[in-house]
Amino acid sequence: MKNIAVLGTGMVGNTIGTKLTQLGYNVMMGSRSATNQKALAWAEANGANASAGTFEDAAKFGEIIFNCTKGEIALDVFKMAGTENFNGKTIIDISNPLDFSKGMPPSLIPELSNTNSLGEEIQKLLPEANVVKTLNIVNCEVMVDAKKSGGDPTMFMSGNSAEAKEEAKAILEQFGWNDIIDLGDITTARGTEMLLPIWLRTWMATGNGYFAFKIVR
Amino acid sequence: MKNIAVLGTGMVGNTIGTKLTQLGYNVMMGSRSATNQKALAWAEANGANASAGTFEDAAKFGEIIFNCTKGEIALDVFKMAGTENFNGKTIIDISNPLDFSKGMPPSLIPELSNTNSLGEEIQKLLPEANVVKTLNIVNCEVMVDAKKSGGDPTMFMSGNSAEAKEEAKAILEQFGWNDIIDLGDITTARGTEMLLPIWLRTWMATGNGYFAFKIVR
Repeated sequence: MKNIAVLGTGMVGNTIGTKLTQLGYNVMMGSRSATNQKALAWAEANGANASAGTFEDAAKFGEIIFNCTKGEIALDVFKMAGTENFNGKTIIDISNPLDFSKGMPPSLIPELSNTNSLGEEIQKLLPEANVVKTLNIVNCEVMVDAKKSGGDPTMFMSGNSAEAKEEAKAILEQFGWNDIIDLGDITTARGTEMLLPIWLRTWMATGNGYFAFKIVR
Repeated sequence: MKNIAVLGTGMVGNTIGTKLTQLGYNVMMGSRSATNQKALAWAEANGANASAGTFEDAAKFGEIIFNCTKGEIALDVFKMAGTENFNGKTIIDISNPLDFSKGMPPSLIPELSNTNSLGEEIQKLLPEANVVKTLNIVNCEVMVDAKKSGGDPTMFMSGNSAEAKEEAKAILEQFGWNDIIDLGDITTARGTEMLLPIWLRTWMATGNGYFAFKIVR
């Protein structure tokens, strides 16, 4: 099984990392420091194929890298990890460019939305890596178990590399996603990142975060 | 049956107007001039309860007004129609703030998206009218016949007036929408207007415009 790095120790990184270890992958959770208590506790709880390290350790370890950091710090995290450590690798980017500075619900960071996206900026920062934007449009429990939405929803993928999208798709299928739409190159991440405002408002209106989008067609 | 005005003579106005006359409503299509050939031809083709007039004629005629104009001119159309003619009335706003100036697919007009929306700007221009944003997230044939998407999709509604949303909902149900989510006040139109970028990219990726969004939950 492949080595996978998970960048970020929050709820998303935790849930993704745990699911990947359950699927048999070797997973290293990366954070700012090698002694991050949350990352060490996660590794301790998830058996022999779970480990923890710095962002740089994780980037070197992973053949596939899940970006589970907050959107506002994602670019800095890739820099801290050493951009050369991502060369030739598939990056599954789950982050969203949320802007909490203008009140709730968050809007999108203006320079990273509409005519740009965080996915594109990560791809520009790491021109020799293959960024695939996906999974960013549901809560993390639904990410790893699509059926938790209560049906058979759609997941979108965006990326420049067909090979990297195949790698991502294989994992999405292991997460229970049966209806996957390949939107095209990484610029199409603008569309999926701009789903966050309706996700937030649907959640607020229904009081239920366990939902997902289905393209009925 | 109520009198309904349809502002706009394009494909959306035509399709909405035709469906409303078929449902038995009295419909006036409004345009810049009382002698607009497209509006007159539409009225001619749709029987005794179809008529055509200026934006002002239509605004005065309608108890409910469908805004089927292009987003970039919508505010000007309401001004041309005489803003006072909308007082106390329900406006069903289908328009989208698409910006074609930066290439294809269109993005959203920056000052009308993310931290603002066209729906909100129309409500600000017409403080004594009740704007309901809805239907703007599917093609016009699916708008008037939800089943044309191939399933039982979700439609969102946003607006400040519960009464106006009930009026809109009754028409949505006549258009075949069974799963309607009331997102809340008109600021939630930011979420539905920001669905256009993913709508456009899904259409481009699948080659199929007869789809709709379902909130699986």
